Amino acid sequence: MASAELTSLDEVISNSLKGKELEEFNRIHYGRIDQCALFISSVAAQKAASNGFEIKAYDFPARKEECRKPRIVRLGLIQHSIAISTDNPITQQRLAIFEKVQKIISAAAAEQVNILCLQEAWNMPFAFCTREKQPWCDFAEPVLTGPSTVFLAELAVKYDMVIISPILERDDIHGDTIWNTAVVINEFGKVIGKHRKNHIPRVGDFNESTYYFEGNTGHPVFETKYGKVAINICYGRHHPLNWLMFGINGAEIVFNPSATVSGLSEHLWAVEARNAAIANSYYTCAINRVGTESFPNEFTSGDGKPAHKDFGHFYGSSYVTAPDGSRTPGLSRIKDGLLIAQVDLNLCRQIKDKWGFTMTQRLDLYAQSLNEAIKHDYVPQVVHK
Amino acid sequence: MASAELTSLDEVISNSLKGKELEEFNRIHYGRIDQCALFISSVAAQKAASNGFEIKAYDFPARKEECRKPRIVRLGLIQHSIAISTDNPITQQRLAIFEKVQKIISAAAAEQVNILCLQEAWNMPFAFCTREKQPWCDFAEPVLTGPSTVFLAELAVKYDMVIISPILERDDIHGDTIWNTAVVINEFGKVIGKHRKNHIPRVGDFNESTYYFEGNTGHPVFETKYGKVAINICYGRHHPLNWLMFGINGAEIVFNPSATVSGLSEHLWAVEARNAAIANSYYTCAINRVGTESFPNEFTSGDGKPAHKDFGHFYGSSYVTAPDGSRTPGLSRIKDGLLIAQVDLNLCRQIKDKWGFTMTQRLDLYAQSLNEAIKHDYVPQVVHK
Repeated sequence: MASAELTSLDEVISNSLKGKELEEFNRIHYGRIDQCALFISSVAAQKAASNGFEIKAYDFPARKEECRKPRIVRLGLIQHSIAISTDNPITQQRLAIFEKVQKIISAAAAEQVNILCLQEAWNMPFAFCTREKQPWCDFAEPVLTGPSTVFLAELAVKYDMVIISPILERDDIHGDTIWNTAVVINEFGKVIGKHRKNHIPRVGDFNESTYYFEGNTGHPVFETKYGKVAINICYGRHHPLNWLMFGINGAEIVFNPSATVSGLSEHLWAVEARNAAIANSYYTCAINRVGTESFPNEFTSGDGKPAHKDFGHFYGSSYVTAPDGSRTPGLSRIKDGLLIAQVDLNLCRQIKDKWGFTMTQRLDLYAQSLNEAIKHDYVPQVVHK
Repeated sequence: MASAELTSLDEVISNSLKGKELEEFNRIHYGRIDQCALFISSVAAQKAASNGFEIKAYDFPARKEECRKPRIVRLGLIQHSIAISTDNPITQQRLAIFEKVQKIISAAAAEQVNILCLQEAWNMPFAFCTREKQPWCDFAEPVLTGPSTVFLAELAVKYDMVIISPILERDDIHGDTIWNTAVVINEFGKVIGKHRKNHIPRVGDFNESTYYFEGNTGHPVFETKYGKVAINICYGRHHPLNWLMFGINGAEIVFNPSATVSGLSEHLWAVEARNAAIANSYYTCAINRVGTESFPNEFTSGDGKPAHKDFGHFYGSSYVTAPDGSRTPGLSRIKDGLLIAQVDLNLCRQIKDKWGFTMTQRLDLYAQSLNEAIKHDYVPQVVHK
């Protein structure tokens, strides 16, 4: 099945069009005729080649300003499959992923990435399709002391990087509860904070409400050495209000670490994170895992079909969108990869000045409208014929 | 210039790909392998051919339900250029557009269209680039008795159609003020209500704040014989909260009559109305005018470039998106056109049940967050490193 998967729709189209038609495709689809691809150093390229992952880099320059210096930051997005089969012991599965991801992070370091984000629940298979609590809950880790934080903190220091680590969290202070959480580790290896997934899916094989509740950490923006970042985890990308609040709190870059499969969402993938970048005048980074994950025991998908053991195809296709709505091509649909975007954060305010979406958004009107709408006796504004 | 414009990027790609690659393009890009194109009757096809407009029709079926009958409705979207040059007398310009549009509406009638929507300020050139009050303000009409309402009301009765007519409104009850307004005319030719554009642009040549203010009609949904419709006029498509409130008020179809040009927004066009359909589980219909409009006097565009007389290329590309995120190809970038979508409105609730976006949207959280955010002393939720 996986072998029949297309590597990249972007590549297919780019290879099929020529001249003026390719130019128009680039202009209309990506929002710029020149992709602004960046050179990859031979060190990083060799790491990629010898470890079987893809590496791509693109530039998003901004206009030079008189009163502010450019604020150039290099973002890194990592997408990957699991490393060994899901019937191995938890600790072995995790270590095998660490080993794989470490190589990609070292390539990111060779490319001077400043802020790196991993995919949702990056250190485990996306086992929530099974509805089995064991052994999968044992992947959950405390934010401050868990093995993934320890592993990444060391790399953050080594490479002077801010690393965002989306994990399954075990909160042992509050009843051993489980959460879907992004941990933000700064360049000193310190956990500066966490964000818990605000919107939890109940769709298809995404039985996540069996495992954890809606997040209770609001919409924090993390002011790092390199810029103001936020994390909208996976299913939160379907919720424009979630994106909005990160913008209101000042985010310049919002990462969307995800896990989503081709039968369900692939036609939405290019739309939602990109729309959020446009609507909120910030950069968005959409990250999806790759590969097909099989589980030891069969499960059903609530669709009347027979029980089965795999989750369908995680289609990768990670991409970055700038505040002006231009975007990179996606990474591969089937292969591990590192996507680097060199961005000038000054573009956020430049686009606010140009398009005026924050000036014209009438938040007071909507605060009032929502106050009414949430009442149990709300009467919708309907005009009858 | 206009002759160098590509007719359709959709067509270019579809003609360049074959077999599995075309299938994957359709699946990933449009959200369905089969476009579900519908047969066009020879009557309508002949009207189109002899009057130089394009006509396309697509089906959006829904699952058969046990407890509800299908609710099949035919939507019609019209995109067109102006009919005669802008130095003609106002009444002649308007009449020439009436004549052109009447032919397209009669083709829509031949195809049993139930709800028809015209483009923004359909009965005039989009003259707001000039910043001249005269003669352009004379295009403004009272909602109930203006020539456009009279013209369309007759056709609405004749064809048993609901017609949405986005015009420049003159409110002679309230100080002769001017508004950007969509008038909803039912199948009896009665004006059942109006909606005024909620968000007004100040970008590029879109100097609309010179002419009218932000709308004061809220987010009405019009319950017509054929379904519950709302109108998000042009620049409102950049505002997710605007789309949201129409959804909260029960809209099943939201029209987005627009006027936008290729240098500014073309890479955003396929993203925003589509994202709204996904986020709100309703149909969206994005309509853009076509052609290049020249004006008698030169104007500047606030971009440091020399004064000039034309507005750039309105790129058409009108399209419909279903609640499941699948969409039609766009109409032509250069030609007048009628896009018909046969939709089953039952799909809206089916998608709400499947994806659960309204269930999981946490409106109470966001009402509270926005109440805070609009305060002058709001302190954003920022975590410092």
